[in-house]
Amino acid sequence: MKHLLLTTALLALASPALADPASTAREAQFDALISAPEQMQWLQTMSSAPNHVGSPHDKANADMQLALFKQWGWDAHIEQFDVLYPTPISTTLEMIAPTRVTLGGQEPAIPQDPTSANTAGALPPYVAFQGDGDVTAPLVYVNYGMPDDYEALEQRGISVKGKIAIARYGGGWRGLKPKLAQEHGAIGCLIYSDPANDSYAEADPYPRGGGRPEHGVQRGSVMDMTTFPGDPLTPGIGAVPGARRLTRANAPTILKIPVLPISYADAGKLIAGLHGPLVSGKERGGLGMAYHWGGTDAVRVHLAVKSDWSLKPIYNVIATMKGSTDPDHWIVRGNHRDGWVFGAADPLTGQVALMAEAKALGALAAQGWRPARTIIYASWDAEEPGLIGSTEWAEQHAAELKAKALIYINTDNNGRGFLQAEGSHELQRFVNSAARDVTDPQAGTPVLDRARAALLAGHYLVPGSVDAVDYDAAKAGGDLPLGALGSGSDYSAFLQHLGIASLHIGFGGEDQAAGSYHSIYDSYTHVIQFDDPGLAYAATLSKLVGRLVLRAADGPRIPAQYGDLARTVARYVTEVEKLDVDQREKDRALADIRREGYFALSKSPTDPLTVPRDRGITPLLDMLPLDNASDHLSRAASAADAMLAKGDALPPATRAKIDAMLGTIAQLLTDPRGLPGRPWFTNLVYAPGTLTGYGAKTLPGVREAIEQRRFDDARTYIDRTAAAIEAYAARLDAAVALAKAPA
Amino acid sequence: MKHLLLTTALLALASPALADPASTAREAQFDALISAPEQMQWLQTMSSAPNHVGSPHDKANADMQLALFKQWGWDAHIEQFDVLYPTPISTTLEMIAPTRVTLGGQEPAIPQDPTSANTAGALPPYVAFQGDGDVTAPLVYVNYGMPDDYEALEQRGISVKGKIAIARYGGGWRGLKPKLAQEHGAIGCLIYSDPANDSYAEADPYPRGGGRPEHGVQRGSVMDMTTFPGDPLTPGIGAVPGARRLTRANAPTILKIPVLPISYADAGKLIAGLHGPLVSGKERGGLGMAYHWGGTDAVRVHLAVKSDWSLKPIYNVIATMKGSTDPDHWIVRGNHRDGWVFGAADPLTGQVALMAEAKALGALAAQGWRPARTIIYASWDAEEPGLIGSTEWAEQHAAELKAKALIYINTDNNGRGFLQAEGSHELQRFVNSAARDVTDPQAGTPVLDRARAALLAGHYLVPGSVDAVDYDAAKAGGDLPLGALGSGSDYSAFLQHLGIASLHIGFGGEDQAAGSYHSIYDSYTHVIQFDDPGLAYAATLSKLVGRLVLRAADGPRIPAQYGDLARTVARYVTEVEKLDVDQREKDRALADIRREGYFALSKSPTDPLTVPRDRGITPLLDMLPLDNASDHLSRAASAADAMLAKGDALPPATRAKIDAMLGTIAQLLTDPRGLPGRPWFTNLVYAPGTLTGYGAKTLPGVREAIEQRRFDDARTYIDRTAAAIEAYAARLDAAVALAKAPA
Repeated sequence: MKHLLLTTALLALASPALADPASTAREAQFDALISAPEQMQWLQTMSSAPNHVGSPHDKANADMQLALFKQWGWDAHIEQFDVLYPTPISTTLEMIAPTRVTLGGQEPAIPQDPTSANTAGALPPYVAFQGDGDVTAPLVYVNYGMPDDYEALEQRGISVKGKIAIARYGGGWRGLKPKLAQEHGAIGCLIYSDPANDSYAEADPYPRGGGRPEHGVQRGSVMDMTTFPGDPLTPGIGAVPGARRLTRANAPTILKIPVLPISYADAGKLIAGLHGPLVSGKERGGLGMAYHWGGTDAVRVHLAVKSDWSLKPIYNVIATMKGSTDPDHWIVRGNHRDGWVFGAADPLTGQVALMAEAKALGALAAQGWRPARTIIYASWDAEEPGLIGSTEWAEQHAAELKAKALIYINTDNNGRGFLQAEGSHELQRFVNSAARDVTDPQAGTPVLDRARAALLAGHYLVPGSVDAVDYDAAKAGGDLPLGALGSGSDYSAFLQHLGIASLHIGFGGEDQAAGSYHSIYDSYTHVIQFDDPGLAYAATLSKLVGRLVLRAADGPRIPAQYGDLARTVARYVTEVEKLDVDQREKDRALADIRREGYFALSKSPTDPLTVPRDRGITPLLDMLPLDNASDHLSRAASAADAMLAKGDALPPATRAKIDAMLGTIAQLLTDPRGLPGRPWFTNLVYAPGTLTGYGAKTLPGVREAIEQRRFDDARTYIDRTAAAIEAYAARLDAAVALAKAPA
Repeated sequence: MKHLLLTTALLALASPALADPASTAREAQFDALISAPEQMQWLQTMSSAPNHVGSPHDKANADMQLALFKQWGWDAHIEQFDVLYPTPISTTLEMIAPTRVTLGGQEPAIPQDPTSANTAGALPPYVAFQGDGDVTAPLVYVNYGMPDDYEALEQRGISVKGKIAIARYGGGWRGLKPKLAQEHGAIGCLIYSDPANDSYAEADPYPRGGGRPEHGVQRGSVMDMTTFPGDPLTPGIGAVPGARRLTRANAPTILKIPVLPISYADAGKLIAGLHGPLVSGKERGGLGMAYHWGGTDAVRVHLAVKSDWSLKPIYNVIATMKGSTDPDHWIVRGNHRDGWVFGAADPLTGQVALMAEAKALGALAAQGWRPARTIIYASWDAEEPGLIGSTEWAEQHAAELKAKALIYINTDNNGRGFLQAEGSHELQRFVNSAARDVTDPQAGTPVLDRARAALLAGHYLVPGSVDAVDYDAAKAGGDLPLGALGSGSDYSAFLQHLGIASLHIGFGGEDQAAGSYHSIYDSYTHVIQFDDPGLAYAATLSKLVGRLVLRAADGPRIPAQYGDLARTVARYVTEVEKLDVDQREKDRALADIRREGYFALSKSPTDPLTVPRDRGITPLLDMLPLDNASDHLSRAASAADAMLAKGDALPPATRAKIDAMLGTIAQLLTDPRGLPGRPWFTNLVYAPGTLTGYGAKTLPGVREAIEQRRFDDARTYIDRTAAAIEAYAARLDAAVALAKAPA
């Protein structure tokens, strides 16, 4: 679902692993079983017809996968949930003034792309979980529709109240745009793909290149997933028959205003007529015209959406390979299967990687190998409308997963380029070690060498383009850091609701999939031409994730290096402390400027700005509990890592006890009370930002409370977050103590 | 000539001046004599017909000014030079492939702008001092055509050799674009105005707003003024009858290839067809299409220019008011008069400010006042083709100016907004003090308060948008720093050739004159509507510059505070030291990346880049001579400022001797051997960059030698620059010693 192109987290060189010859041979065997041509066949078949939730082809793909998993020796079944999934009955968009023009509708076929003509049964451009309605009102340009943009509008005296907002894609998660528009009083919202973001500013429009063509539209979900993802009617529980359901009217994650996504061809016709102050600088998009903020009667729009709000069945395909010696420790690996139309890049590039792994693991098993721990492969349905398939499954099996799941490994759309990995930081070394052992298909070197090279060359070529933490790590030559997980794919329920250690792995940065993203042009043709020719990187992803699965399921111990987590948490603590100080400094600067009247003095007749609102002064917060907890974690992690490095010398019974203690330790970073205003999100280290959506907020209870000026919440969550970190450290202490105790 | 909008140098609060009541009353009297309505009349008359060099209306304006100066009681005359000034006989531009389209030609009239229909006798779009020619070749997009852009091209394996380059305006001075294209082997060059720079990305296109309309073209000079400005045939001497002249063929500042400027309407037709790798990121402009680097036969262009290369007469109007007590110390004040077409904003907004000052000074003189020192007002001709009028005059009168001129005060185009001042840093306090006493017409507060407010508010609203040195000064509440003078207007010959302390003063930042700059739309209508309604800021400029002239000509001593220069020089020394270290660091990073093959590893199939060239490693240079000289200057300046603060107590004869010693001290920063490769530029502290054109390079002998990797030059110029600074400090020491000596 989330497009990988913009993810900056990358990996690299790890210290040599202590690989035993048998597992090295097994991995070589595994690699030999991965076939990119076979992945291409699956991709072509599975993307040959619309495969959105509820479509016949989505079900056919599930049935095909079920048969294949069984054929490959897995214990497989389809697990169904019945979830709210609105589909459009009618979508209407007209410009009423200055002239009457009908806009919107399905994207036109492109002759070079065979499936683009094959839209029978496809959904028209729409966004799921908008609120139906029929409104006519003046249009206001809101740039990305993020909080900064509403400040810019407010400074110019423009309100969206009673009007229709038009926001461009980018700058934050799709669903926040209509949510914030609604909160500011808008009665409707349009979201369009600006060419500055995914078309001619970045790539030649399709079919000359992979960029978004002028009539391409990005579909998507606008469910309020930052409150909770999954079926909006069954928060926290599986959407099974008999489950207690909310009504649509009282489901908090469904918007109340009508919303439609549109192309830049359509958006240009609307934007061209807007009046009001000029939009310049970073708030302007890339259409060849002046942008104005609008809000006057110069441009009036009629927007109407009517949906079928019935429950629909969704189908997760679940395949299990039982562990031989430790069956109650689970390694869970998933990728979604549903697309918005043909879904070739998103999600099927990742799905065919998963399938190749499952086939290869099945072949290894057929030759007599069995993993020590249990492996579960999942093909999720209904990720696109709101991570629904994975969330319902995780909620339904919450107790068992919390008891047994050691790790959840996710992939999604994948393309050529550089390794991009995000996840729980105790798994940083684990990922680096595997990435050292997988060869990049273009460069012929380990994928982590290429990731490191990209960081170092990128830093040289475009100073400031590479995150400082990543660059420093690449330069120092140690492991490359994992990025923190926000949201945008199926790991959310595992990591952020249940607290299970998770990874999200992919390749990208040299694809052009942003231009076909969630449109009818996300096709086999587009993928093979622009995103992953020959599916070389789908095969590479299989080899990398397959190694992670093999090592997690069959390695001598569960994979973790706690010092990496401790260092990362210490960095996050430093960041929130700096945030507090910097925000206080900025508040004081504003207070000074307001007091001295500098805004009035610098007011321009060409773009008169009002004085920014007084926000008060951010207090200095007592961060000592976090400092102490972070310090405790650092010391405990050092001791635990040292103990585990010598773990082979321990009696097997002790080792088993330690594994049991540490297998679910990641869950100690959760608090059952959850985050302020969104109790479903229990993880106090990793969360998607309420005002970023995709982007992670680390130590979110503290960080977002400071950013959003809820200082009492900040104080509460300094204590709760510190308590969670202390509990984690104490568990490490206990494991170290157990290792030292007489057997 | 140079557009002020992008100048960031601003000013502010100075400590209270020790004003005597008589001069305060005289300044109030002066202010009362400034009439914006009268300035509007002059502006309308002078911009009513094309007034480029050699046009009848330019001569008529000179004659009118001569009569007015005389009427106002000045001793005025016209001083003529005969200079090379090419005008187009024919300009031809055609796209040959993919289709044949005729491009170029005069800009169309806009009904709302009366003079735009009045182009009889106007020059068509062209650039002066290109090399005539008739070429047909493939087109290559070179972005700004600056050195970085040629690196980007080289990395993609694209050469301009034998081809025609198309560069967009911006990113560096106009003349560097064809010069660098020529040096890289191009046989022709087009320069166009991209809408990202001065049209719809920044302002509504004229006439809706002041932005550049789609057919607007920026004329200008492409003389190689970074080698020397002025008449290309008479470097260093006045272009008077009998002067020894170079031939056109051996004049180094005239280009060899044909060049034309074009509109973005025309450029879009060419760029749309280009093939080759995609242009993205900062190298891309703002047209609504994909940009490609080109260089293939997909787009072929026929470009031909033929010019009349005869000498033309130019007319400087020079008006003198002789000093009563100290006639051999001169205060020189100038603004050019010639435009490219109607020249309403550039230069006449500044010219009418100068005229109002001259009229008011004349009126004061008629009431019996006389300045102590001599005042010279100059209306320069032929600034646009290459600072020719001012340069020839300064060269012709070099000996007398070096002996007598204390200061040169320049203005050029002016608009509404914020005070922008650049100049010799010993004049920083002088400018700040005057700016404290002039009221902003929009805000009603001192213009320096508004400049300070803009810095502080701008820093808050757009972090990073305000230069750190400016922001720190604004926040600290002391004087605001002067910017360093590069080039782009008539101060060059005074400051950079003769070494005379200079200032360049203007208002801007709220005008939209970038959109009419050097086009037929730079009209009275445009100015009054978008750039300076009511000419409120022309009047304000008169009041500010009038004060500077009055205080310099009639104050108790010549204006200088040497500590400001010393602090600024110390900062520049720190900068070049840091440049050396940073460049060395960057070289080492490149060497590491090359050695490890990181570029090859990170090579993308969608935009394959070659490895950047090995440049060697920048040596650590011995900067101690500069450190010592800067330290000497700091100590000497402190002592001199302290002595001058108590100057009233000295015997008048001693004061006169000190004034004589310090009046021409700024010239000690020059070296008669000049800068490497450009001996005309003798100032070792301030120069226009050879690769920036407008932008200043401070300590240029050292800084540019490091940047351009001429390390032997760097060593030579560390010594020469240090020697100049030492000489300056020694002169201050001598003045202090004189003050202490028995009378």
